[in-house]
Amino acid sequence: MRAAVMRDRKLVVADIPVPEPRSGEVLVRTLACGICGSDLHALKYADQFVESSRRAGNAFVMDLGRDVVMGHEFCAEIIEHGPETARRLPVGARVCSRPTLLRPTGPQTVGYSNENPGGYGEYMRLSEALLLPVPDHLATEHAALTEPMAVGLHAVNKARLGPDDAPLVVGCGPVGLAVIAALELTGARPIVAADFSARRRELAVALGADVVVDPANETPWQSWRDAAVWRDMERAPQLPPWIPGPPLRPAVVFECVGVPGVIDGIMAAAPRYSRIVVVGVCMEQDAIFPLLGISKELNLQFVLGYTPDEFAATLGYIAGGRIPAEPLITGKVGVDGVAGAFQELGSPERHAKILVEPWRP
Amino acid sequence: MRAAVMRDRKLVVADIPVPEPRSGEVLVRTLACGICGSDLHALKYADQFVESSRRAGNAFVMDLGRDVVMGHEFCAEIIEHGPETARRLPVGARVCSRPTLLRPTGPQTVGYSNENPGGYGEYMRLSEALLLPVPDHLATEHAALTEPMAVGLHAVNKARLGPDDAPLVVGCGPVGLAVIAALELTGARPIVAADFSARRRELAVALGADVVVDPANETPWQSWRDAAVWRDMERAPQLPPWIPGPPLRPAVVFECVGVPGVIDGIMAAAPRYSRIVVVGVCMEQDAIFPLLGISKELNLQFVLGYTPDEFAATLGYIAGGRIPAEPLITGKVGVDGVAGAFQELGSPERHAKILVEPWRP
Repeated sequence: MRAAVMRDRKLVVADIPVPEPRSGEVLVRTLACGICGSDLHALKYADQFVESSRRAGNAFVMDLGRDVVMGHEFCAEIIEHGPETARRLPVGARVCSRPTLLRPTGPQTVGYSNENPGGYGEYMRLSEALLLPVPDHLATEHAALTEPMAVGLHAVNKARLGPDDAPLVVGCGPVGLAVIAALELTGARPIVAADFSARRRELAVALGADVVVDPANETPWQSWRDAAVWRDMERAPQLPPWIPGPPLRPAVVFECVGVPGVIDGIMAAAPRYSRIVVVGVCMEQDAIFPLLGISKELNLQFVLGYTPDEFAATLGYIAGGRIPAEPLITGKVGVDGVAGAFQELGSPERHAKILVEPWRP
Repeated sequence: MRAAVMRDRKLVVADIPVPEPRSGEVLVRTLACGICGSDLHALKYADQFVESSRRAGNAFVMDLGRDVVMGHEFCAEIIEHGPETARRLPVGARVCSRPTLLRPTGPQTVGYSNENPGGYGEYMRLSEALLLPVPDHLATEHAALTEPMAVGLHAVNKARLGPDDAPLVVGCGPVGLAVIAALELTGARPIVAADFSARRRELAVALGADVVVDPANETPWQSWRDAAVWRDMERAPQLPPWIPGPPLRPAVVFECVGVPGVIDGIMAAAPRYSRIVVVGVCMEQDAIFPLLGISKELNLQFVLGYTPDEFAATLGYIAGGRIPAEPLITGKVGVDGVAGAFQELGSPERHAKILVEPWRP
């Protein structure tokens, strides 16, 4: 099969064997697969990515001397049922799945693996037990956004927002946009969001942000403070007279950038008792000043992925139009366009999510 | 009055003016004042301390070109009531107080201030409204431990321990010992605690630790795992077959060391979903790998100080014998011994808390 392969730390188009479904698995044809920021990281900082994964004890440990087909945000079509399958869904059915294979020895990842090619190739093998059928009316390209949008729902669930919490989303790339969409679902308002890119700020509004800020011109915190003033002053806490300004609701900040320095900047600017949800995936070493956290009794909640329920719910939200998928898709390529798309995604002015359609000639 | 003064970034004994109580304040004579690890930091890294305080927007911003009398863990005796005082407590009464002055322009700190000398001098001014009377039977030197022990109670309260949480205390200096004492009060058992110093491990046991570990010989995490096995297996979560070992209760780790690298080490070793309560005060820049937090969905709760209620409750726990104060006191000096005591406290083999008694000739 044709695939965009990570080989010798570069992306190349290659012909590789079609994976063989094992017990309980199905062979699927990739219909569309989103390019994730983590894939860009994994290519650019391949050795760091593997070393950090090893240290974190997680599943993304690959042998970089061997081929890897990335791609973990996909919608696919069942081609063939492997041995010992229940065949609940027929050949030809469109499906989404968490990028995981259930094996007797434990789960294996799809897409950051030498064994299990991801959606940048024509075919994948998936666990039948994880397949979710895509509703007929739902466009394939929208269904392919289930995985990245589930990340936002999980982050917002982990934030355990109270009715008075005032959110701020720092960074409006795909992760930030997913968080905004999930905040919109929970009704946490107003949603303040910041990004240097005008295009991404437009997308933030399309996904549900109420106030968007260009940090090059003004601090997001001023907009957040304006938005965080209590509406119902009877419920607001009484402040002593020497604290200037009106009382503000508690801050819950979603860090959706994932580059060194951002956590430190948020810790420096955040008000006392802020909760910071770290959704952006910084793969490098980062520097913080613990005293900033201590002085303000900050809380940092790191989050990753989603639960099976959150993944399934997200597909339902997209199918029901409660998460608007259309604005996120800013490009489509075949396997020979993946390397170029990785380059283009470096420029946030043009793109949010580029989909790979490996069946394209 | 005689005082151990921080002058030109050094500790010297000097004669300085007795502070004058303002409206609502009393003049007190310092009976005993503990030396805090933060004071050691503040002297050794004075410029960093001030700069970090400034960046954190907190109260500990001092002019290092002027004198500072440190000391914020004290028991004192009322000498004179200032103007507009209610005189609820008589001259001669022994009192504890949070190291704070309530001023119309906002609270001011006692001990990290150019204006308000702390307990390393013979006299202080305190806000009458914050004074807590020391029960007659309670030794002055034990009452002086109220402040540091309240730090432990606050940290444990902020951890919001559930009935199944399994604690690990990393570092058994005064902060770690205070956390252990507070854990003992909550009934969170067994308490596992780690320190390189045999003397401090002894103190940890005296304060309530059930298991102590020397990290030079074995990882604290093995002892924690042994202690964290569910007793009541019916309540334990079911683990899939590929996860080795028995199911373990959730980890709540108290970081009580406060030097660079410790948070990273805990993040690397902690199991998934661990909560890390940062009580140790690291005043320098520190390095973390966010991916460690992300991969395991860790939570970092930074904590500082205590609430007024926690401070008052701690005095009550010490008076009632529920927090054993005696083992903590390992030395006493006059003002001329403060500089030497700062040196000695660098060696954890000998000391936990040294008290300054400025009235000593």
